Amino acid sequence: MTDALKIALLGHGVVGSQVVRLLDEQADDLAARIGAPLELAGVAVRRPARHADVPAHLLTTDAAELVARDDVDIVVELVGGIEPVRGLLLSALESGKSVVSANKALLADDGATLHDAAARARVDLYYEAAVAGAIPLLRPLRESLAGDRINRVMGIVNGTTNLILSRMDATGAGFDEALAEATALGYAEADPSADVDGYDAAAKAAILAGLAFHTRVGMSDVFREGIGDVTAADMASARAMGCTVKLLAICERRVDDNGVERVAVRAHPAMIPRSHPLASVGDAFNAVFVEAEAAGSLMFYGRGAGGAPTASAVLGDLVAVARNRVSGSRGAGESAYAQLPIQGMGEVTTRYHVALDVNDEPGVLAGAAQAFAEQGVSIQTVRQEGRGDAATLVLVTHGASDASLDVTVQKLAQMPFVRRAASVMRVEGMGGD
Amino acid sequence: MTDALKIALLGHGVVGSQVVRLLDEQADDLAARIGAPLELAGVAVRRPARHADVPAHLLTTDAAELVARDDVDIVVELVGGIEPVRGLLLSALESGKSVVSANKALLADDGATLHDAAARARVDLYYEAAVAGAIPLLRPLRESLAGDRINRVMGIVNGTTNLILSRMDATGAGFDEALAEATALGYAEADPSADVDGYDAAAKAAILAGLAFHTRVGMSDVFREGIGDVTAADMASARAMGCTVKLLAICERRVDDNGVERVAVRAHPAMIPRSHPLASVGDAFNAVFVEAEAAGSLMFYGRGAGGAPTASAVLGDLVAVARNRVSGSRGAGESAYAQLPIQGMGEVTTRYHVALDVNDEPGVLAGAAQAFAEQGVSIQTVRQEGRGDAATLVLVTHGASDASLDVTVQKLAQMPFVRRAASVMRVEGMGGD
Repeated sequence: MTDALKIALLGHGVVGSQVVRLLDEQADDLAARIGAPLELAGVAVRRPARHADVPAHLLTTDAAELVARDDVDIVVELVGGIEPVRGLLLSALESGKSVVSANKALLADDGATLHDAAARARVDLYYEAAVAGAIPLLRPLRESLAGDRINRVMGIVNGTTNLILSRMDATGAGFDEALAEATALGYAEADPSADVDGYDAAAKAAILAGLAFHTRVGMSDVFREGIGDVTAADMASARAMGCTVKLLAICERRVDDNGVERVAVRAHPAMIPRSHPLASVGDAFNAVFVEAEAAGSLMFYGRGAGGAPTASAVLGDLVAVARNRVSGSRGAGESAYAQLPIQGMGEVTTRYHVALDVNDEPGVLAGAAQAFAEQGVSIQTVRQEGRGDAATLVLVTHGASDASLDVTVQKLAQMPFVRRAASVMRVEGMGGD
Repeated sequence: MTDALKIALLGHGVVGSQVVRLLDEQADDLAARIGAPLELAGVAVRRPARHADVPAHLLTTDAAELVARDDVDIVVELVGGIEPVRGLLLSALESGKSVVSANKALLADDGATLHDAAARARVDLYYEAAVAGAIPLLRPLRESLAGDRINRVMGIVNGTTNLILSRMDATGAGFDEALAEATALGYAEADPSADVDGYDAAAKAAILAGLAFHTRVGMSDVFREGIGDVTAADMASARAMGCTVKLLAICERRVDDNGVERVAVRAHPAMIPRSHPLASVGDAFNAVFVEAEAAGSLMFYGRGAGGAPTASAVLGDLVAVARNRVSGSRGAGESAYAQLPIQGMGEVTTRYHVALDVNDEPGVLAGAAQAFAEQGVSIQTVRQEGRGDAATLVLVTHGASDASLDVTVQKLAQMPFVRRAASVMRVEGMGGD
C-alpha cells in the first residue's frame, strides 16, 4: 500500500453527501481495489452550517484554496454550472491534480479547454457521472468500442422530462399539469428550464457525440428543442399511431451526397413506436442505444439520476483515476483526431408527423399531398380524423430534410383549406426510410 | 507516432477473419486512437491452405514460434479450448507480451494462473470478448462499478440455447426439434454439448462472478444444469403461469445466517415472468442485469456472438492494450482481494415450480402441502390442472434452499397419490421471496 490519496470535494449536495458516505462505508474495499487508501482532504461548500454531518475541520468555503493545496491529489467536482467551476478545475489540472466531474454543462460548453489542460499536465479528467447517472456509458464508448466505428447514439438521458412525458402518456395530462406533478414529487427543479427546454439533454448529446465520433462537439453544435410545446393532443396523436413521445438525444454520423462524413447532434421530443425498447423506459430511468458497425446494436439501461446512482459513477471514476496515480500512469485522454464537420439541422433527415386542422371538403388530401410533393417530401401514411369543424389530416413522411419539411409546412399554412398546422413532430425509431 | 505495434493472431475463423478485416479497414482510425499503427506480425492456423485471404507470408502453423518472436508486442488468441492455448498464452505473458483473448473456457478454468503471469510481467490480460460478445460488460464491471458494491449479476449469456428456448416458446416444439432447427440455421455446433449442457454459460458465470465480487471463481465453483431436460410441457407450464424459460447465469453475493458473506454462482434453466426484461431477449441476443448497492439496477443488451460483434470487443481490448504499451503503463489487473467463500448449491435459496402428476382424489393437496411444510418450504401458489388420469398439481414455492426442495421432492415421489414428479424448475426474477 502506498500513502493515502487525498481528495478535495467541491460540493456536498444530493450526490456529494452520497460520495462522502460511500467513501467512508467502502473505505477498505476501495483501498484494496486501488492499492492505496482514499482520504478526504476537504469539502468546499457555500454554507458550512448546513453540512453538520461532515467533520467541521474538513469544511471550507474557500474552494480555490482547497484546490490549490499541495497535498490534494484528486479534485471531485459536484457543484455544476460554468463559473466559477471552470477556473477551479483548470487550476486543479494545471497544478497536476486529476479531476473527476459530473458537470455536463461545463464539459459541453468548454470540454476542449479542460481536456487540453489535462493532457498538458498528464493527468486524468473523467466524467462518467455527467451523462446517464449510474449507467456505464462514457467508458464503454471511449474504451470498449474504441476498435469499432460508431454510427449512431440515441437515448433518453434526462429523467425529469421523461417523468413528465411518461405522466402525460399515462394520464392524458397536459404539459403544465405533468410538470407540476414532477415538481411536487421533487423530480423537477424550482427553475425547470435546463431540463424542460432540453439544455441538459443537449449538453449530454454533445458529450456523447464527442466520444462517439472523436470530434469536439460544443453546445452551439447541437440542435435543441424542449418539451414545453408537447400537448396532450400530440400525445393522443402519437398513441393513435402506436407511438409515444420521448425527449431524445441523437448523435449521428452521416455521409452527404458528396461522400463527406458529417456529424449531426440534436435533442428534441420525438414520437417513437411503442414496440421500440426506448418507449418502455419510464419515469426517471435512462436508456441509450449505440449502433456500431461491427458490434451492431447495444443498449445500456439504468438510473439516470439520484444521489446514490450518480455517486456510483463518481466513485468508479475516482477508483480509476486513483489507480492511475498509484501506478504513475494516465488513462485514455481526449480523442478528437477525426474533427468531423457538423451538419446543420436543415440538412438532417428524419421522418415527420404532421397534423393539420382542415376544412372538411373534397380535394383537401390532393392539395396537401401536392405541397409535400413539391418539396420532394414523400408521404408514408395519411389518416383523416374527425368530420366538419373537427377534421384533422395526419400525415407521416418518409425521411425528409428539416429544411424541406419547414418549407412544406409554411406552404401548407397558406392553403385555403388548412385552418391550422396543429402539430409537427419528428418520428424516430421506425427503421428504414 | 511511435513505431508500429506488432500483433500475433492465433486462430483465423469466424471471429479472427473479422479481426483481420477490421484491422485493415480501420487502420488509420486505430492508429490515431492508439498513437501508433497496429501491424499483423503473423497468423497461426492449422491448415494454411484454407486461409487464402491472408497474405501467405503471414500464415504459420507454428503458433509457439510466432508467440515467441521478439518483435511481437500483443498476442490475440481466438483459438479456444484449454490446451495447447494455456501454454502459449503463459509463455506470451512471461515474455512480456500483452494478451487479448476470447477464451472463456480457459479463463474460467485457470484464469488465476494467467492473471498471475500477467501481473508478474506487468502486462495486460484483457478478455471482454469472452463474455456476451460485443456487449461492453467486463470493463464496466471491472472499472465503471469499481467504486460500488455489486450484489447480483443475472443474464442470458449463451445465444445458442436462447435461440432453442425461444423457438420452443414460440412454436411449442420439443427440445430435440428446436435443437435440430438451430443446427440447421448454423447457430448450434456439430457437438452442441458446451452450449446445451450449460458449460459455456457456467464458464461465463465464473468470469462474471470473479470480476463482480473480487474473488477467484473457477468452473468447479459453479452449479451447472443444461437445457436438455426442458420439455414442451415445461414450456407450456411456464406459459400457464405467465412465464417463459431461459438459461440464466446468476452470480450472487449472499449473507448467511451467521453474517458471513458468500458467493453463489450458477447456470441453469429457470422460469421468469414474461414482464421481466430478460423474457423478451430473443434468439441469439444476450442481456445481463447488474444490481449494485449505489447504482441500482443496470442492464446491458446486445449481440452475444457472431464474427463481427465479437471482433468489436476484441478490437476494443486491442486498442486499450496498445494504448497502455504506447504510454508504458498497464490497465487494471486482476482484483481478487476479497476471496469470498463459495456457497454450496444446497444452501442457495430460490423459488421453485413443481409439477406433480397425481391421482384425482380428495386429500391430495393436503398431503402435498404437508410434505412441503415438513421441510420448511413455504408455498406461494397452487394450481390443479386436468382431471382423472391427467390430473396435475402445480405448486410455486417461496424462496427455499435447494437442499430442502430436494428432500421435499423425494418425499413427494414416495407418496401414494403421486404418480410422478413431472417437473421441477427454478423460478427467477419474481422479486421478493
